[in-house]
Amino acid sequence: MNPTNLTDTIVALSTPSGTGAIGVIRLSGGEAIAIADRIFKGAKLEKAETHTLHFGEIKDGERIIDEVVIGLFKGPKSYTKEDVVEISCHGSSYIIQQIIQICLREGARLAQAGEFTMRAFLNGRMDLSQAEAVADLIASGSESSHAIAMQQMRGGVSDEIKKLRQELIDFASLIELELDFGEEDVEFADRTKLQELVEKIQKLLKALLDSFALGNAIKNGINTVIAGRPNAGKSTLLNRILNEERAIVSEIAGTTRDTIEEVLNIKGVTFRLIDTAGIREAQDQIEAVGVEKALEKIKQSAVLIYVFDVIQTQPEEVKADLERLNQDNIQVIAVANKMDLNPYTKAEHYTGDHLSEDQFIPVSALNNMNIEFLKDRLYDLAIGQGLNEESAIVSSARHYEALRKAHESLDDVLKGLNDNIPSDFVAMDIRRALAFLGEITGEISTEDLLGNIFSRFCIGK
Amino acid sequence: MNPTNLTDTIVALSTPSGTGAIGVIRLSGGEAIAIADRIFKGAKLEKAETHTLHFGEIKDGERIIDEVVIGLFKGPKSYTKEDVVEISCHGSSYIIQQIIQICLREGARLAQAGEFTMRAFLNGRMDLSQAEAVADLIASGSESSHAIAMQQMRGGVSDEIKKLRQELIDFASLIELELDFGEEDVEFADRTKLQELVEKIQKLLKALLDSFALGNAIKNGINTVIAGRPNAGKSTLLNRILNEERAIVSEIAGTTRDTIEEVLNIKGVTFRLIDTAGIREAQDQIEAVGVEKALEKIKQSAVLIYVFDVIQTQPEEVKADLERLNQDNIQVIAVANKMDLNPYTKAEHYTGDHLSEDQFIPVSALNNMNIEFLKDRLYDLAIGQGLNEESAIVSSARHYEALRKAHESLDDVLKGLNDNIPSDFVAMDIRRALAFLGEITGEISTEDLLGNIFSRFCIGK
Repeated sequence: MNPTNLTDTIVALSTPSGTGAIGVIRLSGGEAIAIADRIFKGAKLEKAETHTLHFGEIKDGERIIDEVVIGLFKGPKSYTKEDVVEISCHGSSYIIQQIIQICLREGARLAQAGEFTMRAFLNGRMDLSQAEAVADLIASGSESSHAIAMQQMRGGVSDEIKKLRQELIDFASLIELELDFGEEDVEFADRTKLQELVEKIQKLLKALLDSFALGNAIKNGINTVIAGRPNAGKSTLLNRILNEERAIVSEIAGTTRDTIEEVLNIKGVTFRLIDTAGIREAQDQIEAVGVEKALEKIKQSAVLIYVFDVIQTQPEEVKADLERLNQDNIQVIAVANKMDLNPYTKAEHYTGDHLSEDQFIPVSALNNMNIEFLKDRLYDLAIGQGLNEESAIVSSARHYEALRKAHESLDDVLKGLNDNIPSDFVAMDIRRALAFLGEITGEISTEDLLGNIFSRFCIGK
Repeated sequence: MNPTNLTDTIVALSTPSGTGAIGVIRLSGGEAIAIADRIFKGAKLEKAETHTLHFGEIKDGERIIDEVVIGLFKGPKSYTKEDVVEISCHGSSYIIQQIIQICLREGARLAQAGEFTMRAFLNGRMDLSQAEAVADLIASGSESSHAIAMQQMRGGVSDEIKKLRQELIDFASLIELELDFGEEDVEFADRTKLQELVEKIQKLLKALLDSFALGNAIKNGINTVIAGRPNAGKSTLLNRILNEERAIVSEIAGTTRDTIEEVLNIKGVTFRLIDTAGIREAQDQIEAVGVEKALEKIKQSAVLIYVFDVIQTQPEEVKADLERLNQDNIQVIAVANKMDLNPYTKAEHYTGDHLSEDQFIPVSALNNMNIEFLKDRLYDLAIGQGLNEESAIVSSARHYEALRKAHESLDDVLKGLNDNIPSDFVAMDIRRALAFLGEITGEISTEDLLGNIFSRFCIGK
């Protein structure tokens, strides 16, 4: 995609393909209105007010293709800041093809994936981070992923980045000023204060970097693996957990399932429940193969729900299982099932260094006892205090990379300050950090970067 | 569906479901604008002009669901003649579900299939035949089916019917006037002229009835069966015919294939090519099973393309094959293949009572000789002079039935006139014919009829 090619007028179907009541074809660019006026028999759009709707016919010579409603947006008051014409036609693939063909013949070209939004970015309607959020918004399948995308589209992440960037620019200005007075050995920038400022910025960067684990998990769903010995009651527990949620999930079309067996929605956060085949015992030892398989899945997950039967499984067996299954960077919940059969089971028999009391959840899947509590714990573990409206959450791997590199550059700045290296080297490191932050909002961008970003959009957006 | 329930405000997604750049949610009814005003943070729609577009946010309390553009159509200047609000949101299933949910909570109800168009009919924006054409238009997959649907939507068939109906009403008025003067034995209606009028109307009805075969074929595609002995060159011929067309057909999504093997488009008319297994010979006799199977397919078809090899097949064999395969109501083309091997083959050796010269098409599939001519003949045979812009074409089985019954009632009128039966009986038969014609345009309708018609629409139209 050549992003500098803004002179073309582009056209695409903006609604999903397939038969429906209506389809919307979008034209954007300098010729959009002129093209529409040539094929539309109705009001003269050139002379019409912006933000108006017009009923009429699309004609191919004398042949009527369809009766349509045209929505007119005159630039810069449009999505792309260019002239935009939206043609609402009957939702027949044949009619849609015909109208697009006529637009092409009249001088438009087919829009590439994301090209309308790319123009919105290039024409300054939104920054790059906001433009990226449009694709996330369209793909969002749960309340929380929707909330993150919406926050980003409305400038949440950008605002944070821009604030940091401004502080850095102020910082840099002082240093650069010193360079201008290089021979006089003045120090406009108080080194101690500068150091404090960099540390403060790094702290903010760190918070954004930390939010990525959560942001990414929310965007893609939180992989949650369920493991346990046979007859621990995994299936019953799974059914209990999923009971009322199934319908809600299935309402949302396009939920990716892949190898995931069940999808659970807790307070708007998607958990992807991955069942393991069950860990089988062999001569009092957990069978190697079972553990192997479980471990593979655990490594790809953020949460492990270990289910055991309080009647059959001894505390030392639970401890052995957990020690075998536990991995770095995974949150563990141990679900003590069949508590109805032994209500006097005590948490302290099971807890210890390998399992805190918080992680021990007594339930009876059969009697639906404590299931809601288990879900709450699951949510708290995965989300914690991460989701609140004030703090920006980074959910893009690209943003994460840029933030990480900016953080590294600031490490170099700090090191330079400590080592008392010449100011021009410090200034260079600051400029590097500025460039990485600028990549996020698109203040600094390359064609490759833009091509990468917008190619993941759908056509017509 | 209860068509009298026009007081509800209805809501539905009008674009195909699935992820896309945008989705359009349509609200129609007395509360449409009030509901939109409650959930939309932007311009006050109540006070806005009709046919205007408004950018703003859909909010659920404090939570922003999406940034949207609202199109406002104030009744009666709308599709349904009611107030209509169209919400263009980001094409995420989650967002679409959320917005529809909020509309429901604010007092709208989900629209049933075709309910927007049903309202357009009930509110007098279009007659029933035109409303039905909207569904045909959406389903149209070829130039000719599109043309028929467009003509019907724009009142083509309705105009013809209304003209006939008006003539009948004039006719009936005179008869009914006679009844008022019953005892005086006056004759306002000249019986001879009346008879001429009925005959003229029947002629028009007949033309419409005759057009149904074509209309139905065009709407659903023309079943064309290909039969021939093995090695006649059927496959090569099929490939030649389909060569350039395949790509065109595959561009149009949703083309029904069912058991049809190939779809061919000639001048915008869809031919469904049904291949037969091939007729095998057994002791100089066409094998019973092969013929049986071919006959089954021929019975469901409008056109038979019989392919034979001018080198291998003798004129008497061709004659025997054709006599076995020929059916009532089927158009036959005999394709003499491999003409390159025997260019001196003469048509008159093959033609006769069973095959006219027009039906004999010499080709060489191998050398691509005469293939275009074959296609032209195929088109002419199937369509003839039927497709011209002046004449209305009936493509609906419901219309056909009503026309047929109207024709029958007029037969009774004619019989009554000939038998000199009392005028009140004649008047009754005329009223019956009027009722059948009124069903087509919806001047006379029942809830059952409407329910049937609109249930074949998609939701949101």
